[in-house]
Order: sequence, then C-alpha cells, then structure tokens
Amino acid sequence: MAIIVQKFGGTSVANAEKIRRAAKRVTETKEKGFSVVVVASARGQQTDELIADALELHPNPPKREMDQLLSTGEQQTVSLFAMALDAMGYKAISFTGSQIRMMTDSVHTKARIISIDAGRIHRQLEQDKIVIVAGFQGIDENENITTLGRGGSDTTGVALAAALGAKLCEIYTDVDGIYTADPRIYKKAVKMKQISYDEMLELASLGAGVMHPRAIEFGKKYDVTIHVRSSSEDIEGTIITHEVPQMEGVVVTGATIQRDMAKISLIGVGNVPGNAAKVFAHLAKAKVVVHDIIQTEVSSEKANLTFMIGDSDLPSAKEAMEEIKDEVNCQSVFVREDIAEVSVVGVGMRSHYGVAEKMFGALAEAKVNIDSITTSEIRISCAVNENQADKALEAVCNAFELDRPANLRKK
Amino acid sequence: MAIIVQKFGGTSVANAEKIRRAAKRVTETKEKGFSVVVVASARGQQTDELIADALELHPNPPKREMDQLLSTGEQQTVSLFAMALDAMGYKAISFTGSQIRMMTDSVHTKARIISIDAGRIHRQLEQDKIVIVAGFQGIDENENITTLGRGGSDTTGVALAAALGAKLCEIYTDVDGIYTADPRIYKKAVKMKQISYDEMLELASLGAGVMHPRAIEFGKKYDVTIHVRSSSEDIEGTIITHEVPQMEGVVVTGATIQRDMAKISLIGVGNVPGNAAKVFAHLAKAKVVVHDIIQTEVSSEKANLTFMIGDSDLPSAKEAMEEIKDEVNCQSVFVREDIAEVSVVGVGMRSHYGVAEKMFGALAEAKVNIDSITTSEIRISCAVNENQADKALEAVCNAFELDRPANLRKK
Repeated sequence: MAIIVQKFGGTSVANAEKIRRAAKRVTETKEKGFSVVVVASARGQQTDELIADALELHPNPPKREMDQLLSTGEQQTVSLFAMALDAMGYKAISFTGSQIRMMTDSVHTKARIISIDAGRIHRQLEQDKIVIVAGFQGIDENENITTLGRGGSDTTGVALAAALGAKLCEIYTDVDGIYTADPRIYKKAVKMKQISYDEMLELASLGAGVMHPRAIEFGKKYDVTIHVRSSSEDIEGTIITHEVPQMEGVVVTGATIQRDMAKISLIGVGNVPGNAAKVFAHLAKAKVVVHDIIQTEVSSEKANLTFMIGDSDLPSAKEAMEEIKDEVNCQSVFVREDIAEVSVVGVGMRSHYGVAEKMFGALAEAKVNIDSITTSEIRISCAVNENQADKALEAVCNAFELDRPANLRKK
Repeated sequence: MAIIVQKFGGTSVANAEKIRRAAKRVTETKEKGFSVVVVASARGQQTDELIADALELHPNPPKREMDQLLSTGEQQTVSLFAMALDAMGYKAISFTGSQIRMMTDSVHTKARIISIDAGRIHRQLEQDKIVIVAGFQGIDENENITTLGRGGSDTTGVALAAALGAKLCEIYTDVDGIYTADPRIYKKAVKMKQISYDEMLELASLGAGVMHPRAIEFGKKYDVTIHVRSSSEDIEGTIITHEVPQMEGVVVTGATIQRDMAKISLIGVGNVPGNAAKVFAHLAKAKVVVHDIIQTEVSSEKANLTFMIGDSDLPSAKEAMEEIKDEVNCQSVFVREDIAEVSVVGVGMRSHYGVAEKMFGALAEAKVNIDSITTSEIRISCAVNENQADKALEAVCNAFELDRPANLRKK
C-alpha cells in the first residue's frame, strides 16, 4: 500500500477541535487506500510558553535541557492525535523521536538528522495502524534528546517520507499554498500550482516563511514531492517538486522582500589576497550572519567590500569592523541601516535574457532607487530604501505579471 | 561519595519559585559532600490538565497513549530543575525514564519496575553533576512509555536509591511528616519520629495518603531508609525504616479512617468448598476491589460471607451478587452503604495483650456501635456508621494517647 506522510503544524493542532479536524483529514486519506504516517508539531503557542517557563529559571538555559523541555510539546500532540483517531474507530499509535530512533548529531536546538529506523513504522503500518510521529525532535548517539530548530517538523515530515519510501509529503498549514509574493503586501498575488525545489529554496532563504529550507533540501535530495496546503479547506495547494521542462518557460516564479537589513561597505580595502577572508572570519567570530557580499576593485591597490546583514547584527558587526579595519588597510567604513532587499526568483532566468533589465526598468519607473544588486543563477536581488520596499515589490510583481497564473502570462 | 536521593512532589515544584527553592535544598545537600540524585514529579496540577485534554478527545483514552501523554509532565519538570541548578552555578543533567532505561512491565498506567541502568547515573555523578530523573515513568521492552500510577514518583525515588546503593531517600512533600492520625480530623495528632515499613504499609493501604505503598515495599525489600519531610520548612520529618526493638514498646503507632466504604453480606451461603472462590472470582470479573473479608459458619451447612468494598464499586458488586447468589445457594444479600472503617496500627500489638479490648472499650464509651471487626498481625479495624467516623477516630486516638510522642505515653 502506498504511503503518504501528512504533517500538521502547530496552528492546525492548537486545540481539541482542530486535532479532530486534522484527524478527519487523515482518515479520509486512509479510506482512499493509503497507509498514512502523520507528523505533528506542538500545539499552538505551547513551544513559546515552555520557552517562557525556562527563561523564568535561567537567562540562557543550557541547550541540552532546552531540547529535553521543548520536545514534550510534540509528544503531547502525537498522543492526543492518536486518541482522536482511536475515538473515530481507527487503530493508531504515536511515537517520539526516540522511539523511532530518529538519530541526529548532537548540536542541540539545531540538530541534523542522520538516520531513521523505518522498520518500526513499517511494522505498525502492516498492522493497519495510522502512525503519528512527533516532529522537530530526535536523539543523539547518547540518547540525549535533540531538536531540529524552528520549523523542524517540516524536515521530520520530508525525511520520514524519504526513509519510508513515500513519494508524497503533505504539509498542512494555515496558508493554502505558496504565493507569487506575500499577499499581505502584494494583494494581487496568486497561488502557484507548482514550484521547483531550487526556486522554493531561494524564496525560503529570502524570508518567505512557509517552508523550512532543510525540508526542501531533503525533498530535492530524496525525490519526495511536497504538497503545501490548507488544513482548514480541502483545496489543492502548491506542489514543490523537481524542475520539469515547462517550468523553464516561466521567467519569474515569485518575488519576495527581506526587510530589516543593513549594509556595511569597507571603502578602499587593500586589494591583496587574504583581506576578504580576514574580514569574514572576524564577522563569524562575532556571530554575525552575512547575506550577500559584493566586492569591486577600484584600482590595482584598492577594492570596496560590501555586505548585507540583518539589522539586529549591526552593533556587533560595526564593532568587529572597527577592530579589523586597520589590519586590512581600510580607508573608511560606510554603514546604511534602512535597507530592504527585493528579489525575483525563477529557474527560467537561466535561459531567458532581459530579466535584470525588466526588473531595473520597473523599479526606475516606480522611482525606486537601487542601492546595490546581487544575483544567483536563478535570482536577482536589489537593495532598496526600506520605506520604498512595498512600492518596489508591487512594481516588480506587476512587471513580471505575478498577479496571474504562470500559464496566463504574456511571456 | 555517599549518594542521597531527594524526591520532590508536584506541589513542591509547582512554579519557578518553588523549583528554585527545591533546587536550593539540593545544593545544600550537595555542599555537605553528598552526591545527589533528584526525582521530580509533574508540576502542580499539570497531570490533571493533561488528563482533561485527553478526555476532550476520547471518553476512555487508550492507556498506551495516556502514558505517552502524561510522562511529558515529569520531563518538563526535570529539564526546568536542571536549568535552575545550572543558573545557581551547579552542573546538572536531567533524564527521562527512557534515558536511564527504567524498565517496567507493559501494564500501562500501572506498570511495575523491573530494572534500572544505574551506570548512566553513576557516570554523571562521577563528573560531579547533580542528576535529575523524571519520576513516575519507565519504558517497556518495546520502548513504549509506561507510568507507575498516581504517586509513582515515590516508587521511582526509592527504587533509584536501591539501584544506586543509596541508603537514604528523602521524600519532600507539602506535609512535614507522618502523623499519628490525620490532623485535619484529630487536631491533637502528633508527628512521628519514626515508623516501621510494615506499619506504614498498613496505614498507606488504609488511606493515609502521604506515601505510595509500592515505594514502602521497595524500601523494605532493598533496605532504603525513607525520610518524609517538608519541602518548605527545614525541619526533621518522619523516618520510615526497619523495625527496631524499641518500636515494640509502642502498642499503637497510628490510627486512620477509611470512609466511603460499603459492606455486602451474603447470608446463609452453602458451606461447601469452592463457594467463596466462586463469589470472589465473580467480583474480580466485575473489577470490584475487595477490602476485608469475614466468613463465619452459622451451621454445618450454612455460612455468612461479608466483605467491604468502596462505595463506587457498589453498583457493580450488587449486580455481580445477584447473578451469583443462586449458584452458591445464598439465602439473601444484605447491603450497608454508610460504612467507615477505623483502624489502629502498631508492631507492638504482636507482643501486647488488651489492644482490641481497649479499642472496643473506647468506642463503646463514645457510644459508637461496631458493625464488624477485622484484624491483621499489626492492625485492628472496626467498621462503624459513617456519620460516627470522626468521633470514633477521636475516641480511639485518645485511648492510645496518640496526642503525644511515643516515648511520652504511659504504656
């Protein structure tokens, strides 16, 4: 019997009524003749409540104990979910990460999955049971409980699908799919029928919060189709899958904004090997997460080095730059705080000309000044003034016709 | 370094402030040069809240899932407890039942401990850590989470002390020790300095709710001294230990009332082998818990068979008796619902005469009618009318001078 993995997020299991509704979804799939494995997150705001409990006792709780604490949230959901299914007359059994040997490394609060014992789940499915697995959690080789970080239940779902040989992992959530842009900002955004793993990865890392990037990586690596859909309405959502030829016809799949960014430029850095390495090693030591990097030679001896960071990292980044600037012969440090980054993503860019030109043109027409530009193979990002961010997104979305389904665009 | 096990009940860890206070107790013991292993229960009313969550989804939740759910309560406490100790500058590590291989049978919600892997705890103690273990829970051979039933954390504490070779298990609770009688009823009751395992077992099974009977059995079997004491005040509580010669000098150690009892008498049962067995097999099938049993021959052919049960079991017991009465040639079934049982307990009874006489005399003087009498080697119980229960306890306590410490009594 074919296996489907169905993952329910915290808002989809927040109370008894919602758990029952999710359970009904599961039984409908079961009745269609599938074996169903459910992955569930902690109920509603419970993880936040547990974090608050911990902070009452410790300003910076030991990570191992934090994982021990937080993993209880999912454990509660899965046992309640199994009870709901039993009450509906279905055989069900819940498992913690430990019980299915969801082995991870020992990096508490950000662990990575190493292996899963699919055998125990297969044996239960053979007995016609519905299996409910606690998302977000695993154990390391010493039986310490680990967690995969926020959104980690998505990763559990897709990794389980891979381990069980399931071709499909459904992600039930409080949105009904992936949109061409954030509908709260660009009201005319439309839901995509499908998107490639690579495009979704770019969008996720650019702040489109629907899916956890690691889950998408797993899907890509192990060939698991991901279906992001609504837990409250029974309508098709968005399929995340491998690139298919017709995707190439779509130049831009989606657009996104990342706010609260800052830019630091080191002007006139000595243009000798090793200087850039020194700068970024120093930033890493200060625990600053660096986004895009732009380096340009300004003469044979001098270069300008620019990078984007989150606003919250700005104080430590500035301090780090003051410490290192003499060592790399930097003439001056220039900081801009009010930056947002507007990006367009699409695998079609690989084979289409004129995408950058169209984007810059749209921004110019909307009178949005572009501070700096970075690109990847399937992405173009423009840094703009933060207070022009919404206008910039709207202009770009209109230019690429993101207000209509891909097959109805002019090109 | 000598090991002490300290168990904290739900009220002693109900919130952050109480957890900190409990943790302070632990560090004081650590500073005295002991290795400390902590056993903790779920915080305050949390177990009740989780049960309510379950009942919202299922009128009679599957027991395996109930255990999976309830065990999270203790897991939360132990991680928070470890954080509190860390914040005070002590090295600490928390463990679930699974993590220390607290192996039990598979009787969910009422599991019995089979073995414990003391090695993992010893290794942590050797690293100078304080170890905090989740009470109440274990796992069976298939990694299913089990629980030991209400009050099971006491059993975890004493069993751990036994497995670790600790001579002492301190039970921190919201009362400051064991009293000669329930102080809410007999205001003059005094705290005992010590009590034997056997006496405490009798009192516990007669409804004195301070300690879990299985914990006392473990203590007796594995020679672990149990110290029941207050978590809020730093005063000596009551030591539960092996019988020592001077205990024999005390005729009655404590007295207790069990309310909400009912009595069923089968009048004129055929006095042939096997009839009593039939009656009690039938009661067991109806899941009725039978307390005292009294059988008396009334002729060579007939006997009266009387037994005590809890009020809540009365409907099913009555039904069972109607079904079986013809089969055992019973002439009539007599039921009394308004029964309470007053008991006195003391190992000194073994070597003292006149205890029963004194008890009956005290009840007669208080004008309390005795319905029936049962005894064990160290206990005498009288069934009385429920509305005379408090008066009966007071009379008995006064007669045996339970308002003063054992060494100050006349005899």
